[in-house]
Amino acid sequence: MAQVTEIPEKITPEELKMMIEPADQASVEAAKRRWMSVAKPLFSLGKLEDAVIRMAGMKRTAEYDLEKKGLIIMCADNGVVEEGVTQTGQEVTAIVADNFTKKAASVAIMSEIAGADLFPVDIGMAVDVPSVTKTSQKIAYGTKNLAKEPAMTREEAWNAILVGIRMAGDLKAQGYDILATGEMGIGNTTSSSAVAAVLLNRPVEEVTGKGAGLSSEGLEKKIGAIKRGISLHKPDPDDALDVLAKVGGLDIAGLAGVFLGGALYHVPVVIDGFISAVSALTALRMVPAAGDYMMPSHVSKEPAGQMLLDALGISPFLTCDMCLGEGSGAVAVFPLLEMGLSVYRRMSTFEETKIEKYEVLK
Amino acid sequence: MAQVTEIPEKITPEELKMMIEPADQASVEAAKRRWMSVAKPLFSLGKLEDAVIRMAGMKRTAEYDLEKKGLIIMCADNGVVEEGVTQTGQEVTAIVADNFTKKAASVAIMSEIAGADLFPVDIGMAVDVPSVTKTSQKIAYGTKNLAKEPAMTREEAWNAILVGIRMAGDLKAQGYDILATGEMGIGNTTSSSAVAAVLLNRPVEEVTGKGAGLSSEGLEKKIGAIKRGISLHKPDPDDALDVLAKVGGLDIAGLAGVFLGGALYHVPVVIDGFISAVSALTALRMVPAAGDYMMPSHVSKEPAGQMLLDALGISPFLTCDMCLGEGSGAVAVFPLLEMGLSVYRRMSTFEETKIEKYEVLK
Repeated sequence: MAQVTEIPEKITPEELKMMIEPADQASVEAAKRRWMSVAKPLFSLGKLEDAVIRMAGMKRTAEYDLEKKGLIIMCADNGVVEEGVTQTGQEVTAIVADNFTKKAASVAIMSEIAGADLFPVDIGMAVDVPSVTKTSQKIAYGTKNLAKEPAMTREEAWNAILVGIRMAGDLKAQGYDILATGEMGIGNTTSSSAVAAVLLNRPVEEVTGKGAGLSSEGLEKKIGAIKRGISLHKPDPDDALDVLAKVGGLDIAGLAGVFLGGALYHVPVVIDGFISAVSALTALRMVPAAGDYMMPSHVSKEPAGQMLLDALGISPFLTCDMCLGEGSGAVAVFPLLEMGLSVYRRMSTFEETKIEKYEVLK
Repeated sequence: MAQVTEIPEKITPEELKMMIEPADQASVEAAKRRWMSVAKPLFSLGKLEDAVIRMAGMKRTAEYDLEKKGLIIMCADNGVVEEGVTQTGQEVTAIVADNFTKKAASVAIMSEIAGADLFPVDIGMAVDVPSVTKTSQKIAYGTKNLAKEPAMTREEAWNAILVGIRMAGDLKAQGYDILATGEMGIGNTTSSSAVAAVLLNRPVEEVTGKGAGLSSEGLEKKIGAIKRGISLHKPDPDDALDVLAKVGGLDIAGLAGVFLGGALYHVPVVIDGFISAVSALTALRMVPAAGDYMMPSHVSKEPAGQMLLDALGISPFLTCDMCLGEGSGAVAVFPLLEMGLSVYRRMSTFEETKIEKYEVLK
């Protein structure tokens, strides 16, 4: 099991930023050299080759495994649901969170094929769910209604981030080689659109979608609630933690923490869809070097999906029009990443084969 | 093991066409109904849901497995290499074909993770490779140089197609639930570009790329060779078999046969990259109903990659800039298809859960 330095209990965002270092360029170069020697047409695995190279930089070695794979699912409720931005109540958050522990959720079924272990975290559900809830991880019983008051205090947002960082550290200590990010929280596309609108500096209408099947009328309410929240609390676009606290959610904060934790502990963290990408952008704005540790997966069907990937400077492997959440897109790329790594590690080199310069063939 | 009706030895293209029926709409509708009942946001698995539905139509049942997965790799040489359209000789085709049997090729390594079995076929390599070659499957020792004479006779092209059909039938009989298509053949992007230019009715320059790393000078030679071949033999764009015979290759013909065999025997066949997509288009032009049995995978980085998928009317799951061939893109989607099917089959329904109308939530 890996040795992991625990972060101090009272660490500040500034102190954390100082602790996060960019990816290791020597390992990146070593991985590039290894690919050049593999007996197959050069660059022919495209983004899978890039992914293997980037992960070498994250892990500080060109020889690594992707054997132990984990999915952290942040579960939280959102006070903004009282504005009618969803078609059901918060009880569904709790039901689905419990289902994660029973392998009865969509992503749990997909994770079996991907070989990933699930770690649902109650970072802020409106109720306690015995199979999931741990008091050390629970910041609040849901956020406040962002259309009326700030969703969280700055301290709550930061504490939620710390939960995510510690979760990443715990899994690193348990030997996990790569982490995926997922979430469950009724109303969390509303908070995500609010954060996206501010961080991307785009009109609310452009970054707000129907989530999981909202009516056109519901969409109007959603846009209205976000606009009221933003004009009321005036989040500072240059202070991502301020944006997160005022119009974000506890799940977004927790996932931002997982991205920061991945960066701190040198573990690749796979971005899922819309909500996860908003979390990734929040983390990136807080600590630019954290971007080195983020891996793409798919592009969400939500309107801001592609805009967020552009802002993150990454390009997806999957274009499957998925928008299920829970980390489903992130675990879906695990087999692809393993395939790329497997060719990289096990395929013979030009020297070992009778093939000369196969890279310029066919 | 499934019962498979063997095709008559002397079957004609017209007789085959009569035997192929479109996908079963009742099973398609049954699969759609099943998805509507699954307790997750409607349509949230996007193209994975469509794939599950389409495969139900192919298999004529809404209850099916994707347990046994096979990859057929057609290996063949191309006389056109004497025009300098590649940077090495045909010996590499034989080396890599042999490597398929030793799990020493890129796609063999990837197939282990995908859980797919490899079936390399010597349909026309310039030499015999003991581990691969079967006289019953070998049509010729490579094609003629298409820049000077027709690559094959019409009869050879048809016989190569029959090899592919029979291969699909054999694997269906052995219980394979889904097939992927791959190829190995130095020079086969040249023949594929020639077929693509004619079938897509596009200028040769637009559909011809550098294959696996050809120089700009090599690319000029390649374009020149294709143009000479097309103007010399005047393939009839309305007769795909004529195009295949005159400017195609034995691997393309064999894969076209696999697509037709999949349609005949109701087995989904996954398209790989450029060469495989050319084969799929050839099959589609010969028997339009065969299109019902084709599954996309990725979009090749070759210039005609997207054009071919457009002509086939399908949209890829993966956008990974891959261009390795061998069936690598096709096997890469197997885990995704299994994930989609697994949620479809195993996820609880709205009736079974306490969740009401989760489709319109979040």
